[in-house]
Amino acid sequence: MGYETFTIEGRNAVIEAFRSGKTIDKLYILDGCQDGPVMTIRREAKKQDTIVKYVPKERLDQISKTGKHQGVIAYAAAYEYAEVEDILQAAREKGEPPFLFLLDNIEDPHNLGAIIRTANLAGAHGVIIPKNRAVGLTATVARTSAGALNYTPVAKVTNLAKTIEALKKEGLWFVCADMGGTVMYDLDLKGPIGLVIGNEGEGVGRLVKEKCDLAASIPMKGNIDSLNASVAAGVLAYEIVRQRML
Amino acid sequence: MGYETFTIEGRNAVIEAFRSGKTIDKLYILDGCQDGPVMTIRREAKKQDTIVKYVPKERLDQISKTGKHQGVIAYAAAYEYAEVEDILQAAREKGEPPFLFLLDNIEDPHNLGAIIRTANLAGAHGVIIPKNRAVGLTATVARTSAGALNYTPVAKVTNLAKTIEALKKEGLWFVCADMGGTVMYDLDLKGPIGLVIGNEGEGVGRLVKEKCDLAASIPMKGNIDSLNASVAAGVLAYEIVRQRML
Repeated sequence: MGYETFTIEGRNAVIEAFRSGKTIDKLYILDGCQDGPVMTIRREAKKQDTIVKYVPKERLDQISKTGKHQGVIAYAAAYEYAEVEDILQAAREKGEPPFLFLLDNIEDPHNLGAIIRTANLAGAHGVIIPKNRAVGLTATVARTSAGALNYTPVAKVTNLAKTIEALKKEGLWFVCADMGGTVMYDLDLKGPIGLVIGNEGEGVGRLVKEKCDLAASIPMKGNIDSLNASVAAGVLAYEIVRQRML
Repeated sequence: MGYETFTIEGRNAVIEAFRSGKTIDKLYILDGCQDGPVMTIRREAKKQDTIVKYVPKERLDQISKTGKHQGVIAYAAAYEYAEVEDILQAAREKGEPPFLFLLDNIEDPHNLGAIIRTANLAGAHGVIIPKNRAVGLTATVARTSAGALNYTPVAKVTNLAKTIEALKKEGLWFVCADMGGTVMYDLDLKGPIGLVIGNEGEGVGRLVKEKCDLAASIPMKGNIDSLNASVAAGVLAYEIVRQRML
């Protein structure tokens, strides 16, 4: 696969990267460094909800590939995020009712990669992830997506609940994975749909869940609590596929 | 969770572990060491298809927790494997037609753990894995199974094809995951069934596939080749669950 995160090193390069709208996954700043350019970088990072880590010089030297980091190293995704509109457009172009995945704070990059892989094969038109807290499109995600990142657009939004609101106006219905919901086989999951998958530990957050039209549960016949998040996403997605094929 | 692999160190301890039938996942022997007791250990390891690695003294010292390895360290699973008969018995006790997972050389411990987790929640009575090449019940598998290893028996067999033959005499049908197979929604997957999932890269091996009664495919609507092995197992397992619930 052709993706990698790459490092952007040095103050001007990092400021430029932020200003050009490049997606910075993570930012390392020399601990204690507070001069003008570094404060500018910190402001840009805050605006874009970038994760910032303050580290000692030895750590920066270790990460640095150029040896000229000037106290600042950013990790950028080689992969570009799409817009939500691009995803709707992809559905229109195929003449299909939109089928989206919305991921409410998936934290494990292997899960995110596997879910993007599933989204591709289930015929979904795109995946929406939130900016905050959740994992972004890192190299591990790209690798575990098994190439799906080349085909399935991934959009990053500030507020998942608001995005759901907006997409409802476009005619989409939203179903969230919820252990307390109706058994998925008993729901009508055809038509334009957004499948909302929750965080590994906590499931779908309350605010997002409240925006959903339906709550779908996977029948649980065993002794333990829940499926792996990427397996649950696959099982629910393929129930949607099955109903769409009827 | 309470599982861990643990090390058994020293010649007598390791010979004793083999003779008591303990499952040894891996065996480290001091490179060049060929005296009587070590040859005995190597014979036992061969009988049980244990993976043996010959390593320098520094590596053994590093692995050793007791500092008294005498040139031999074994990794044993705290978890005990079940027998195939235990799995059938579990189905009988529940008064259900047997539902088994058979894994043809799953290599990634995260996949194996996630599949055991899925098997538990899909109501399968047990999982069968082959002795050779595939990953065993390591600490990573136990952890990613999210507790399912406490409830879902896992049996290790020498020859998966022969086990399928034997289980057919018990009335089981076998369906293998196969991209060239019939779309799963068009198959009758009710009744006593064994679901055969292949290796991450190569799918189900030819000899095992030939023993299967049915080949099931998951509809693929995307651009890439295949789902993650644990996602595919989940999707197929839940099609079986759906049909069983009808």
